[in-house]
Amino acid sequence: MKLLEDRILKDGNVLGENILKVDSFLTHQVDFDLMREIGKVFAEKFKDAGITKVVTIEASGIAPALYAAEALDVPMIFAKKAKNITMTEGILTAEVYSFTKQVTSTVSIASKFLSPEDKVLIVDDFLANGQAAKGLIQIIEEAGSHVEAVGIVIEKSFQDGRALLEEAGYPVVSLARLDRFENGQVVFKEADI
Amino acid sequence: MKLLEDRILKDGNVLGENILKVDSFLTHQVDFDLMREIGKVFAEKFKDAGITKVVTIEASGIAPALYAAEALDVPMIFAKKAKNITMTEGILTAEVYSFTKQVTSTVSIASKFLSPEDKVLIVDDFLANGQAAKGLIQIIEEAGSHVEAVGIVIEKSFQDGRALLEEAGYPVVSLARLDRFENGQVVFKEADI
Repeated sequence: MKLLEDRILKDGNVLGENILKVDSFLTHQVDFDLMREIGKVFAEKFKDAGITKVVTIEASGIAPALYAAEALDVPMIFAKKAKNITMTEGILTAEVYSFTKQVTSTVSIASKFLSPEDKVLIVDDFLANGQAAKGLIQIIEEAGSHVEAVGIVIEKSFQDGRALLEEAGYPVVSLARLDRFENGQVVFKEADI
Repeated sequence: MKLLEDRILKDGNVLGENILKVDSFLTHQVDFDLMREIGKVFAEKFKDAGITKVVTIEASGIAPALYAAEALDVPMIFAKKAKNITMTEGILTAEVYSFTKQVTSTVSIASKFLSPEDKVLIVDDFLANGQAAKGLIQIIEEAGSHVEAVGIVIEKSFQDGRALLEEAGYPVVSLARLDRFENGQVVFKEADI
């Protein structure tokens, strides 16, 4: 997605070996205009797939997932990272290890929002090691729902998340794919859209 | 906002003494259509106020804040609840005590996204004791920005958040105001819009 790649080149900041900071338009300050275009691109790709739910994980995945859900005209569900006092019944959980933060956290979705009739598009802001997506897939399948594909805004192609998901049979559609960083600049691989 | 009140009556669940669960359209599964209408209502109210940023706090505030930002055509910023590895510089923080969870957490916003020229509309999903809003106000004012008002989707009018904010001089605009719960049903006060 050229609009996204251009924005990453303009406003993204490469930190150290493997971190791309995009906090001016995606992970902290959010550009609704870009998010809406991202949502439309995902929706166009999956318009004939019969998607019934878009699932993401709090917090940075919410904006792109919400606009994808709007463009597909289906509800969006965001998985919670911690148990909440108002979540008292029928909770499906998965353990997700973050290589970045080096902690394991529990993500959860109330089972009542997923059924065997559901065809789910997962949307997330980043794909690195694939652990968050793997946790979401585990929860969605435990509910008996079908995972149609994983839609990613920015894929770190030098990490193994994509391979892990594809080998397990889940199509990955990434709007920007980071091949490597050179002299503090991003070099892209060809994106899926 | 009648559309919101009707939805609360239809799909909200009263739990115990003072909890309203709205996880089917706001805090877990998200109805983009309702969120978009909420965003439009906030934007209509503040269209002449010169708002330059909408600020919320992760995670349930993001959807209504995003659509309010879209309708006002300004960026949205969501404050983080935990420090992130990619947030390395110029972070403004406030301690926020949650009466519900009985924990104090640190919320933060990168200072580069707020300036003395900014007029900020805070948007959040719930107002109870006002601690989250108070923390956001502290951060926004530390950046030298002006807090124009606090926009709330659901106000628990039987708790003291609104009084705390209004006494400190911050206008509160709530789309639904819960006066009390009777026999497991919500009784509303007259909303601000």
